[in-house]
Amino acid sequence: MKNELDALMQANNVDALLIMGAAAHNPAMVYFTGVVHVSAGDLIVKRGGEPVLFCNPMEREEAARTGLATRSYNEFPFMELLKETSGDRLQAAALRYQRMFTSLGITSGRVALYGTLEVGIPFMVINALQQLMPGLTFVGYAQDPILMQAMQTKDEAEVARIRRMGKVTTGVVGRVADYLTSNRTKDGVLVHSDGQPITIGDVKSRIDLWLAEAGAENPEGCIFAIGRDAGVPHSSGTLTDPLRLGQTIVFDIYPCEAGGGYFYDFTRTWCLGYAPDEAQKLYDQVLSVYNTLKDEFAAGRVLADYQKRTCELFEAMGHPTIQTNPATEEGYVHSLSHGVGLRVHEKPFSGTGVADRLLPGSIFTSEPGLYYPSRGMGVRIEDTYYVRPDGSFEILADYPKDLVLPVRQ
Amino acid sequence: MKNELDALMQANNVDALLIMGAAAHNPAMVYFTGVVHVSAGDLIVKRGGEPVLFCNPMEREEAARTGLATRSYNEFPFMELLKETSGDRLQAAALRYQRMFTSLGITSGRVALYGTLEVGIPFMVINALQQLMPGLTFVGYAQDPILMQAMQTKDEAEVARIRRMGKVTTGVVGRVADYLTSNRTKDGVLVHSDGQPITIGDVKSRIDLWLAEAGAENPEGCIFAIGRDAGVPHSSGTLTDPLRLGQTIVFDIYPCEAGGGYFYDFTRTWCLGYAPDEAQKLYDQVLSVYNTLKDEFAAGRVLADYQKRTCELFEAMGHPTIQTNPATEEGYVHSLSHGVGLRVHEKPFSGTGVADRLLPGSIFTSEPGLYYPSRGMGVRIEDTYYVRPDGSFEILADYPKDLVLPVRQ
Repeated sequence: MKNELDALMQANNVDALLIMGAAAHNPAMVYFTGVVHVSAGDLIVKRGGEPVLFCNPMEREEAARTGLATRSYNEFPFMELLKETSGDRLQAAALRYQRMFTSLGITSGRVALYGTLEVGIPFMVINALQQLMPGLTFVGYAQDPILMQAMQTKDEAEVARIRRMGKVTTGVVGRVADYLTSNRTKDGVLVHSDGQPITIGDVKSRIDLWLAEAGAENPEGCIFAIGRDAGVPHSSGTLTDPLRLGQTIVFDIYPCEAGGGYFYDFTRTWCLGYAPDEAQKLYDQVLSVYNTLKDEFAAGRVLADYQKRTCELFEAMGHPTIQTNPATEEGYVHSLSHGVGLRVHEKPFSGTGVADRLLPGSIFTSEPGLYYPSRGMGVRIEDTYYVRPDGSFEILADYPKDLVLPVRQ
Repeated sequence: MKNELDALMQANNVDALLIMGAAAHNPAMVYFTGVVHVSAGDLIVKRGGEPVLFCNPMEREEAARTGLATRSYNEFPFMELLKETSGDRLQAAALRYQRMFTSLGITSGRVALYGTLEVGIPFMVINALQQLMPGLTFVGYAQDPILMQAMQTKDEAEVARIRRMGKVTTGVVGRVADYLTSNRTKDGVLVHSDGQPITIGDVKSRIDLWLAEAGAENPEGCIFAIGRDAGVPHSSGTLTDPLRLGQTIVFDIYPCEAGGGYFYDFTRTWCLGYAPDEAQKLYDQVLSVYNTLKDEFAAGRVLADYQKRTCELFEAMGHPTIQTNPATEEGYVHSLSHGVGLRVHEKPFSGTGVADRLLPGSIFTSEPGLYYPSRGMGVRIEDTYYVRPDGSFEILADYPKDLVLPVRQ
């Protein structure tokens, strides 16, 4: 949680965080600012100090809404900096950072870099700043032990927002189910009232609409994939595909609050009208693994242990898994879980060798699945869980787990 | 345009582009890939060669939809790279890039960096790669003379997409106008049928909904600001504000195709019911400048000249401008224009000293405005223009310019 930041900075020998970019669709920035209309900012978080947000004077009033201390780039007029650097804009930008850091008393130590933005300029500017300020060392992390670590556990306000996004998500899933079951079928496919096939594109455009209606956003799209596509875990589905009865549909939806706030992550697998025996059998196996894991989740445990456990359970059923064959594209082929927050994928991670634990405040997915593209089918079931302060587990949004959606004849 | 890329790379002594990140909400990547479900990729564009997209094998089918040559990260198994680097993930990532570049025959020369992503990892990885491959020099640009330069002029397919987004945008603006004029007023504010005030939040949620209905996205939100907020150019408006008659409303809307495709940019200023004399006078002045510029735009001219011209026109009317007082927050306080494409702000730019020209294929805004927060008002009029191949100018989406929206009594 945010209150761990100073300790995490200290433990990692980091004196300040520099978070660059907009205050929207930028998890590290939004963690401090919320979603506001600041299109370009620099947030400097000094260990033991209050965060300071530098921004364009045109966006000063929006910046003030964050409740953070704000300062204007105009304190260091860019035209003057450009004169000092004979017109070199990258050097001028580096000089501005130097003055910003110096004005905050940060002239030595380690600075960790954050922010989602176009990478070319910061790559050059930070390397130039490094030359200007040899007392500072700029670092970035492959597995961030500071901000991502703090974000790994959520406080009450964050949980409430993710829970609300869970309600939004399952509400939209329910509307999709209602839509599918309210239409007629013809020649084994779902059709509009004019007899034309309903396509995955038709469904997806309604999903976007219903999410917007609920005040949510769908920045990464969603997966609505049928048949063979359902057997390829990250196929998002083919827009022109009709919805054929008796084929598995993997519906994986991961929207966020408008502007790039908190996400939710959720998957159901459906068959319209009926499920062939083979699909039903795969589904029952995935559901059985899902339920076993649900009973076995325990606070304090390493999440990767459950990935191992999932592989063992599926292997005992005779399925290949990436544990025995990392290159397999059939059977169980992905990770069980990841954290959910301002990123749809964040700590804790469940990959082999990762030491992330389920802690009070953790919000994570459980998403076992089986994939057989060669047989034209795939199954995944996913819910987002919260580890309560007392160590008990809560699914943040309930939704039925029926494989078959009945359709009108 | 894209067909200029090789020449631009040669002119800038660049041998390859490295574009990192997802194939959505990432302008440099989407320019080549379109919006597809590839959450992490590396596109290498070798001068004189075909672009090659490296991606996760799980996303291979989505990657193939781009029509680009694709290759899998699995050619360089990360677990083996990790062994070689004794578990150092940043070094392992650098090693993978080294092998990717080497496999494409790129071992010396200059590589320009692109892509929107979290900056900490690429900062470290590219610096490590620089050590591994001293023959390569990695560069980023403050004012990109290659990709941004190519993107500055649009081909027919791009123009068609932006024109379509123009229709979507003005369609939604029309629905907002219809909504405002169809509601009753009470005590000088617009009210719902239950007598409760209609707020800016109510309007904004409808804008998001109607954009989604049209298949568009609103990743940066929009400006719908009334009264004093309208006088602060980048105030996006206060969600709880009621819509009071006789106050200026600045409505600036800049949506994009779903997933982070092409944008449109558009502004109108409205007064509900009536316009006070002072607001009408400001409006007439802005419209007069807008119309003067419209007549004076000519292919081949430097866009910054029109910024200068705008300042002169407003100064002749007695308004302060940033030309005479760069710090002014009243009068004309921003730039006239910017290009529009996969970014809402891109080349050509109109800032003082910028040499960008209006060229056949340029798509740019004209957005003069006057701001008086102290008087509780602001005015801006903005359309997006296209310079046709024959050098004539086209407004990509027509929409009326009435200041006053009549309301029901």
